[in-house]
This record gives sequence, structure tokens and C-alpha cells, in this order.
Amino acid sequence: MKKKVAVVGATGIAGQQFLTALENHPWFEVVALAGSPRSAGKTYEDALKTPSGQINWWQNEAIPKKYKQMVVELATELDPKKVDIVFTAVESDAARELEPLYAKHRPTISTASAFRMEDDVPLLIPGVNTNHVSLIKKQQANRDWQGFVIPIPNCTTYGLACSLAPLHKAFGVKGVVMTSMQATSGAGRNGGVLSLDMLDNLVPYIPKEEEKVEIETQKILGTLEEDQVKDAAFGVSCTCTRVPVTDGHTETVFVATDKPAPASEVEKAFREYQTGLEGLPSAPKDFYLVHDDPFHPQPRIDRDKDGGMSTHIGRIRDDKVLSGTKYVLLSHNTKAGAAKGAILIAEYLCHTGVI
Amino acid sequence: MKKKVAVVGATGIAGQQFLTALENHPWFEVVALAGSPRSAGKTYEDALKTPSGQINWWQNEAIPKKYKQMVVELATELDPKKVDIVFTAVESDAARELEPLYAKHRPTISTASAFRMEDDVPLLIPGVNTNHVSLIKKQQANRDWQGFVIPIPNCTTYGLACSLAPLHKAFGVKGVVMTSMQATSGAGRNGGVLSLDMLDNLVPYIPKEEEKVEIETQKILGTLEEDQVKDAAFGVSCTCTRVPVTDGHTETVFVATDKPAPASEVEKAFREYQTGLEGLPSAPKDFYLVHDDPFHPQPRIDRDKDGGMSTHIGRIRDDKVLSGTKYVLLSHNTKAGAAKGAILIAEYLCHTGVI
Amino acid sequence: MKKKVAVVGATGIAGQQFLTALENHPWFEVVALAGSPRSAGKTYEDALKTPSGQINWWQNEAIPKKYKQMVVELATELDPKKVDIVFTAVESDAARELEPLYAKHRPTISTASAFRMEDDVPLLIPGVNTNHVSLIKKQQANRDWQGFVIPIPNCTTYGLACSLAPLHKAFGVKGVVMTSMQATSGAGRNGGVLSLDMLDNLVPYIPKEEEKVEIETQKILGTLEEDQVKDAAFGVSCTCTRVPVTDGHTETVFVATDKPAPASEVEKAFREYQTGLEGLPSAPKDFYLVHDDPFHPQPRIDRDKDGGMSTHIGRIRDDKVLSGTKYVLLSHNTKAGAAKGAILIAEYLCHTGVI
Amino acid sequence: MKKKVAVVGATGIAGQQFLTALENHPWFEVVALAGSPRSAGKTYEDALKTPSGQINWWQNEAIPKKYKQMVVELATELDPKKVDIVFTAVESDAARELEPLYAKHRPTISTASAFRMEDDVPLLIPGVNTNHVSLIKKQQANRDWQGFVIPIPNCTTYGLACSLAPLHKAFGVKGVVMTSMQATSGAGRNGGVLSLDMLDNLVPYIPKEEEKVEIETQKILGTLEEDQVKDAAFGVSCTCTRVPVTDGHTETVFVATDKPAPASEVEKAFREYQTGLEGLPSAPKDFYLVHDDPFHPQPRIDRDKDGGMSTHIGRIRDDKVLSGTKYVLLSHNTKAGAAKGAILIAEYLCHTGVI
Repeated sequence: MKKKVAVVGATGIAGQQFLTALENHPWFEVVALAGSPRSAGKTYEDALKTPSGQINWWQNEAIPKKYKQMVVELATELDPKKVDIVFTAVESDAARELEPLYAKHRPTISTASAFRMEDDVPLLIPGVNTNHVSLIKKQQANRDWQGFVIPIPNCTTYGLACSLAPLHKAFGVKGVVMTSMQATSGAGRNGGVLSLDMLDNLVPYIPKEEEKVEIETQKILGTLEEDQVKDAAFGVSCTCTRVPVTDGHTETVFVATDKPAPASEVEKAFREYQTGLEGLPSAPKDFYLVHDDPFHPQPRIDRDKDGGMSTHIGRIRDDKVLSGTKYVLLSHNTKAGAAKGAILIAEYLCHTGVI
Repeated sequence: MKKKVAVVGATGIAGQQFLTALENHPWFEVVALAGSPRSAGKTYEDALKTPSGQINWWQNEAIPKKYKQMVVELATELDPKKVDIVFTAVESDAARELEPLYAKHRPTISTASAFRMEDDVPLLIPGVNTNHVSLIKKQQANRDWQGFVIPIPNCTTYGLACSLAPLHKAFGVKGVVMTSMQATSGAGRNGGVLSLDMLDNLVPYIPKEEEKVEIETQKILGTLEEDQVKDAAFGVSCTCTRVPVTDGHTETVFVATDKPAPASEVEKAFREYQTGLEGLPSAPKDFYLVHDDPFHPQPRIDRDKDGGMSTHIGRIRDDKVLSGTKYVLLSHNTKAGAAKGAILIAEYLCHTGVI
Repeated sequence: MKKKVAVVGATGIAGQQFLTALENHPWFEVVALAGSPRSAGKTYEDALKTPSGQINWWQNEAIPKKYKQMVVELATELDPKKVDIVFTAVESDAARELEPLYAKHRPTISTASAFRMEDDVPLLIPGVNTNHVSLIKKQQANRDWQGFVIPIPNCTTYGLACSLAPLHKAFGVKGVVMTSMQATSGAGRNGGVLSLDMLDNLVPYIPKEEEKVEIETQKILGTLEEDQVKDAAFGVSCTCTRVPVTDGHTETVFVATDKPAPASEVEKAFREYQTGLEGLPSAPKDFYLVHDDPFHPQPRIDRDKDGGMSTHIGRIRDDKVLSGTKYVLLSHNTKAGAAKGAILIAEYLCHTGVI
Repeated sequence: MKKKVAVVGATGIAGQQFLTALENHPWFEVVALAGSPRSAGKTYEDALKTPSGQINWWQNEAIPKKYKQMVVELATELDPKKVDIVFTAVESDAARELEPLYAKHRPTISTASAFRMEDDVPLLIPGVNTNHVSLIKKQQANRDWQGFVIPIPNCTTYGLACSLAPLHKAFGVKGVVMTSMQATSGAGRNGGVLSLDMLDNLVPYIPKEEEKVEIETQKILGTLEEDQVKDAAFGVSCTCTRVPVTDGHTETVFVATDKPAPASEVEKAFREYQTGLEGLPSAPKDFYLVHDDPFHPQPRIDRDKDGGMSTHIGRIRDDKVLSGTKYVLLSHNTKAGAAKGAILIAEYLCHTGVI
């Protein structure tokens, strides 16, 4: 008996990723789609059409047939009680308004940033900071909700935080210097990155991105003390850039560590890290996919391996300037760092009886 | 009365850059072209042709007419005494063999790495480590040469070292963490970067590049003590990547400094730095071109400004992890960091009477 | 004594191209800038700034200093009588409203499509259909204007029509089959082509483009009979595609001809065609730049040659299917096919005493 | 009981495509790998390694484990009798030498051009010119072979010929004008397309390609008369270009037809065409995938649909210049037009009892 789920923001790019990932999901069945007034009342197929005849569907997979004739509901009027879980894929402003409506009654897993930094909201990555899930009780008590909201991190934070978890455990992280080379899909399609900026070019700035990465990473790797997350003490300094890649964020990471972190030990830490995600449908075989070939990871070649859910690690080397280690990571920003990452959270919560 | 110069390796991509840059040079006149046995004896125009009819000329400017009918000489038989300066644009192995032949008699400015790390060879960037020029005397004495060889740095080192000079002077550099996003022209055309690697992709590794940047930077910013360069004491840690950009290396730089380096002071250090290059034909108006717009520098948009000879600096911010500063730089790898950079050295040496 | 000109739509991408091209123009001096209510009343420099701090200037050349402090006027209130010529660079809807205001008093050269197909409006390419200029008198009589409006053709039409002129004259064109591979700059920046569509991809459709090319080409190559342009009798069939190129439209052209058109004769027709544009500042040295190397023309390499004003012709071959000829052309869509092309019209009209 | 197959040229890019496509094939089992002296004697995994540590594997899928420890045999010494089918993926010169060695004993399906135009060799596309398979008997008699060689067409020909088959049947093709926009993977990796040529650029020439397309198309669509293929009578005129796309050849096609071919009838001809390939493992569900959305087909978005084995057809329109029809097609050059296309031939021959 599958759990019933709703997808809010179903016609957007992140919503489409949810639908594609959920099409044949063994545990979840999409029974409701919701969207803005522009889409509400139309069949899903019609809601994707533009006046000029273009079909606004941007996944490489075709539109799953099962959704084409479903009627899109108005997001503000969606009744969360008719489903078990709500997945939201809307902009931050809309999330701030809509998610409490759903979370009052049901678990709500969100790709939006609206609630990420609230004290009683876990910024959860299963396998990385699983114990933060206990914040949910505090959240329900604080807000008098029967459900709750759990947002996923920013897609750039996601890979960085994943990669730091084994290092923080094994060596103690003292400081992080990171440069991202981010895919253009991260910017979506409305107000997305223009090709004029991405042909024979790169852009060394993504508004608000660096701040998010810095504070979210500290929260995710923070320790839970009496239902409070105490931020990790290490600093994070980053420069986020946009490069001509469709999917897959690459990050060069330099880490200062408390204990010596020779490359062989670092590699071992990644290979031996236990995530406890075995058996979850969206969990990758290798949570960390360590590359020996120094020319990898490469975004186009590696991003889709293992369902796009692995954090790829390559070029592990000692760092003498920071007295620590350095490496290159690749993370799929529209899979692991977006809809599929949110689905993995839901799977984890179901698996552990929280939902 | 212009000085006579020879260009060795004239048919290659770097050689073409020399010829383009020298076409209308006010001080230098190309009177000899030299190349490999494959080119020797042919007119320059014929030497560029392949059997399949393609003309191997890769500059956006047309082939300067004045060179088309010049006959390419065999590099091993070029008589350096018939010119005042030799510019060499050959691979490192060839440079090791050829450059001593020329340097025995004449100043030889080289784009190759062969002699960069020799004790008696200055790794010169006019305006940055101008005083290293005095190593020439030691070189001439050591080797019994009447001329000398001065190599330019690696193209990735070039921008980094330029950017560090004002900071080292103003604040004292204690450590550098750098990530490069390098253009594909740096790899030339023989064995160059394949498009399959650069479409919707990037490659996180460039063989031997990181080592070069680390040691060359320390030499360039080293201090001259009794005709010896004492390497700068700070460490340099870098990750060099290849991105889908034709020309222009972008680098994100994080610098630990001895003294506090607030962003406003850093900007001032760049804007007020004196290079002493006024009046040299290839010197840019702004040696450091500081961008206020955080979306810049961008390689396609900015690289050719001021003849491709500026080091562009953007996104200056305080760095709390390294206790210093961070910024993004852009440097034209096939202009400032290649042939035009070599020509600037020659101009400087003429201007100061060394040649 | 330079003529005074106004640029309307000065902050847009086409307006910027006008300003860049006119910065050091020997005959024209920009004395007025005009724009929408959003820009009006601000200095030009301020009008380019966005709230987020980005400066919306997209030319590779820096913003010409002389315009930075000029105050942008409201386009609907610009007094055309204070200038000699008005250049307009606005969208078609705005052009339909604004251009009559200017043309009532002054010659108005436009990049917009609004008036292109009007009976009394020449779709002028100097050197190609120069005699159509005589339509101006009809236009002035019809509309009771002292000035007039002359639009430039669509940027894709421009190169095609230029290339057909010598062929039509020498061999008689009976039919044309064309496929364009168009640069993304043609779509501008508002609602421009997204990078997600242009990375490892192309798009085989550009709304409304094929229709424009077909009818505009027939008008441009039409004959003037008693102050009427009689459309050229040949059909034009085309497929217009968008490819990952920033500037420069490439077109493969297959032409059926009345008389035999062997490749050598076709080449000769291009090389010997007389344009009568000698002495005009924006006219290229070679109106047709014929490439012998079959790997050319290439957009990034060739587009900027001769100021971006040449029509490049390559790969001339006999066509047995159409009984005619086939070739590849390249034309700079934001120079020859846009602002600089409009300026060339103005130069021609001044040179011939029409203005 | 699966048939045993050998893959010759197993380490090259086309060989890798065979191995990836055959990894889980229901009918075929790879039991032998063969290659050049450089690879022979090594395990497959070792044969892929370069001295510098790079692993020359270019598929997005990982190297199938089952092949890693297989020892690569020397191609000239491979005993074809130990397998049921030989797949060859070598250059044309090597194919001319090697394929007769195999074809003497066993069916040999080849991606090379060596034998394509021989009189007794079918240039087979199952579903398009299936009856040409009867040439095999003539071939065996002529050459005293027990096996035979069947080459696949050039990857650009493949899509064009597929698309013309229903049109030729329904309307009679009188002439074809085609422009290709070809992916860079078609050029392989040795001597492949450099990124400098494919960033913000395209190249309007691919040596020898146009000739191949013209003659191969006429052979494929020719009629079989007394064990002779009589070439199709219509002419084919094309211009082949290289564009910045990794996989998937796009072609704009303009067709003159004997009978009127209105768009609705053309669409119907594609949708109703019977291929007779039902039940073959590599046959796509839709041999022709007709797109209603005029913005499609697009290579990155559509190429991998249905296993990369469909010929995508879009933008069907009437053509008034040629009195026929025009459309855009997309075909996966390294799947349908390469290894998987060759495997489909083998499947068809097994299915019909030829093998």
C-alpha cells in the first residue's frame, strides 16, 4: 500500500523533477498536483502549454502519462489531509505562505529556502545529520502543528556538507575554503541564465549563494544539544561561480583539519563512512563515489551515475597551506540537491517510522 | 630605427600570437622567422598549409601580409647575430636545445618553461619583480653568454603573481589558496582539449599545472639577495581546472595576510600600485583593472580590454577563514600570459637600456 | 561639421551597439539619447544600472565616456528637429508608435520591423538595392512627412539578400533553399535564449523568422517599377535554427539559377560585384569576403573581420539538384545586420545628398 | 542460449558503444574482444589505461564489470569460428584488411565505410531497405565466403535515409537538399574536434562527408533488380557542418516529390510506416518519433529517448520552392547511427533466420 503524496509547484522545473522521480516510486503515489492560479483548473498537460505552442517540459524523460490528465489544484486550496506527504517545489516567498498550510496537518518536504534557518527546523541530509530529525517535535510543539516542514539545503550546500561529514568525524574540520562551478539549471528557467552569459564565458558571482552555503553548512554539521542545533564552529569561505554546464555542481574544496588528514586516510574516511541508508529506494549504492582517475569527476560524464544521488569525490591531495586536505566534488544539483534529495528524506522518515 | 627581432616557432599558435602582436610594433621589426624541419624552407604562408587544404592560422586577425612571403628558416640554423632580440615560442624540449644557441649571442625571450626554475634565470614580470632582471649578469657569467634567456611564467601563474604583488607589499602574504578555471587555448592545438570534454562539461585536472603555479609564484615574488632569488615564504595551494572558455584564465584567490587586509584597503592597494611601465607600447593603461560590478570580470566580455594586457580584479571581499582577503582575477592567457607578455619584457629591457 | 544624431532605445542591446559604433564616427555626433519611462531623466550611466547592482552593458568595448553623463530623454517627447538623423533601436510595437513622430520631421533609420513591408518604405541595403531609395519621395508624399523612415532588414535576411544580389544579376535566381544557424544575440537579452537551451544543444525553430526572411528577401531583390517595388519572382524556402554561437549568423544556401552558374563564375560574380560604397566610413573593404579555405567562414573566427561589415562567402559548389549553386555565408547579426548596417544607410544617404 | 559475438576494435569509442549496448543483451553474449597490437594481450581494463593515468573510457555508463578482466586478442589473429557474429568497430583501412578474414567464416557487421559501396554488399537499414539483404548470397558466391559483411551507413546518411523511406514510398522523392548540424562525437577522439573550434563557433565543412551522404542515400533507397541494387534516381545535395553538440545529428531536409506531399499527409506517412521490426530488442517503440512542438527535436533533450534508436521528425511544412515537403530530423549518431544500429541488423538477421 503506497503512501499518497502531493506535489506543489508541479509545473515548474523542480516540480517536474519530482514527478519524474516519483513516476515509478515503490513507496509513494502522486495523487494530487497543485500550482499557481495560472495552472489551477487545467489538466497537467494543458498547464504546461504556452500560448505560442511550446510545451514547458524540461526533463529528458517524456511527461509521465499518468499525470497528463490530472487536474492541477490551486496551491492555496490544496487539502493536505487527503495525502500522507506534501512535496513543495515553489519559490521562497510562496513557500513561506503555503508550507505552514500543509505542515499544520502533514509532513511537508520542501525544496525552498524559506524555513531553512529557523531554529526549530532541521536542515536534514539523511546519512549526514540524521539525528537533527528530532527537532521535529520541538517544531510541532512550537507551532502547534500535527505535521512539520523539512527543507532540503541549497543545492551547492548539499554536496559540500555531504563531503565534510566524514572529514569532520574523522579529523575535525577547522575551516573550509570552497570555489563552486555551478550548473545553469540551478537558476531555473524563469529569469534563468542567458546563453549570452554562458557561451565562451563564465560568471564569477551568484547573488546570495555564498551566504547560504556558509550558514547552511554550519547548521547541517552542527551538533544537537537539548533540541537545539549548535552551529559547527568552523568557518566557511566561498566563491560561487556559474559555468557553462547544464547539470552538476563542481566544487573545489580546501579543508583545514584538527588532526592530520593524509590523502590515504581521507579516501578511507569517504569509503568507510556508514550512512545507514541501506534499503531506501533513492539511496545511491555509493553515497560517496571516490574517483582514482584525476581527470574525474566531470559533470557531463559522471553526474547521472547511480541515479544522480552520489556525491563524487576526486583529486584528494594533502593541503599544506591549510594543514589539511583538498579535493574536488561533484553533486547533481537537480537530483541529489533537489527533488530526489527531498524524496530521500521522505523515504528515510517513512523507514524510521516518523511518517 | 626599429630593433630587429626573430620569432622562433613562428607557425605555432604562440608564434602566430607574436607575429600578430608585432605586426605594427613601434619599436620592433620581425626580420626572421624560424621553425621545425617541416616548415623550414617554405614561405610562411605555405608553411601554414596542411595537405588537406586547411590553413593552420588561428588568430582572429588575418595573417599579416608582410610575413606571408618570408621564408621560414630552420630553427637550429638561425643565426641570432643578425637580430637584436630572439622571441621563442616552442615546446619545452625544443627550448632546452634551441634557446642556448640564441642566448649565447642575443637576448632571448621565451614562452617555454625550460629555463624558468634555473637559479640564474629571472622569471620576470615587469612591474612585479623588475629587480630580478639583475640575475642576467650572473647568468651571463655562469654560462659565458653574451645574450641571455628570460622566460615568461606559466600563463596561470602570470595572473596570480601579478595580483599578489600589491598585496604582498601592502599586507604581507602568508598563504594562498587558488582555484583556476582555465581557457582551452592554453593547451594549444596539438593534443589540445577536445570538444567532447568541453561541451556541457569541465575537467578538474591539468597535468603538471598546479606544481608550476606553486613554485613559479614563490620565485616571482621572492626577494633578491646577493644575486640569488630567495623564494617567497608563503605556501600556494591550488586546484587547476579546464572550463569551456576559449581565452582568459579566471582564478578565485583566497589570501592569508600578515596585516589585516580589509576590502577597501585591498582595492586601494590595487588601484595605487606603481608599475613603472608608463610609455611601454604593450603596457596596459590599467595594469590592474578593478571591477565594481560583482558579475565581473567575465572572460569573453573583459579579456580583450586594454589589449588583453590587464589583470582584472573583481569581487574583493574579506576572508575570515584565512584572515585575509579573497577576490577573483582574470588574465588573458594568450596575450598577457604569452606572446604579448614576452614582448612587454623586451620593451622594458630596451627602455631601461639592458638591450 | 558633423551631423547631429539621436539614438532612441539607447539602453538596449541594439542601442548600445549604435553608441559603440558612433563613438568615434567621423561624420555623426550623438547629441541626444532617448528611452522608455524607466530610463528617462537619468544619466545614461545610471539608466544602465539594475537594482541588484549589475550594469546592463553588453558590449565588449567599455561604455564610451562621452555618453555616461548624458541625460536620457523620454522617447515620446524627443524633439527630432534638434538633430539631423534619428536612429531607432526599439521593439516593433514601440517603433510603430515612435517612428512616425520622428519621421514627420527627420530621416529615421530603424532596426525595427514595424515598417519594413509597407509599400512606400524601402527595405534598403546600400550596394544591393540602392535604387529603392527613390521610394522615399512617395513615402513623404503619402504621409505628408518631411523626413522618412528607412528600416534595415531582419538580420538573417541581411546576409542572404546581400549574397543573392550578385547571383541574381549574373545568373538570375529562380529559387532559394536556406538553412540558418543563428547566433543567440539575435534574440537580445529580454526574453533571450536561455543557456539551458544552448549547451550541448540547438533549437530548430525561431518564431516568425522564416516568414520574415522569405518576404523581405523578395522585396529587397525586387525591381523598382514606377515607384513601386515589384517583388522578386523567385521563391525562398528556409529553416531557421538557433545554435550556441554568440554573434554571427551562418547560412547554408542552395540556389536555382536561370543560367548555368559554375562555381568559378559564382566566385567571380562575388569578387567583381561593384557596390559603389567606396569612401563610406562603415563600408567594409570587401563587401563580399570569399574564403578559399573550406573550413571557413566560422563565426567566432571571422565575424569581426573588417569591422563586422563583410558578408563572408565560403564553400561555393555546383548544385545539381537545384541546377544552380550552393554556398555558406556568414554575416554579423549585431553589426552588419543591425546598428552598423543602419549607420551605413545613413552614410550612404548623406554621401548621395539625400540627407 | 545466447549467440556468441566478438567485438573488434573494442577499446575505441565505437567499440565501447558496442560493449555498453551488449552488456545485458538478451540474445548476444560477448565472448571475445580484439584490438590492435597496442591493446592485444592486456586485460580490457588495462588496455584502456594511458601512461598518464587517464582511463580512456568515454561512455556515461561505467565500464561493464564483465569485460574488465577479459584479455584483448590481436585483431589479425582472432578466430571468427569461435563466435556466431563479429562486430567490427575499426577505421576504414583496418576494416578493409580485417573484415574479409572474419567474413570468410562468419557474419560480420561493421561500422566502417570500407565495403559500403561494393556491388555485392548491402548497405542495410532494417525497416528501410530490408530486401537488400538478399545481396548476401551474391556476396558469398562472388567471394567464396561462408559468412558475409554488412556495413552500416555513415551516421549522417542513417537519419536521412530513414526519413526518406516513407516519403519515397508515399510520394516519390525527386530531389533532396539537406544541411546537417553534426555532433562532435562523430569525429571520435583521435584527431577529434578541438574545443577551440566548438566554443562560440561552428565549422561549415566535414571532409568527405557530403559525398558519402549523397551516394549512400541513393544506394540505400535504391531498388533491388536481379541481385543488383539500382541506385535511387533522385539527386541529393548537402552541406555538412559541425556544431557544438556532443551527440545527435540534426538535419534540415527539403524534398522535391513526384506527387503532392501536404504536411498532413507527410506526417501520416511517418506515423503509419510499417518497419516489421517488432520484437527486436534494439528496435525503438517509435521508429519515427514525430514532434508536434515546433521547438523540437533538440539534440540534448531528445536524442536518448527510446534508447537513442528513433529517428525524430519535426517541423513538417510544405515546401513551395521544391514542390514537396521540408522537415527537421534528429538521429543519434553514436547509437542508431553506430553500434546499436549494427546490433539491430544482427538482431534482424537472427530473427529472420539469416544467422
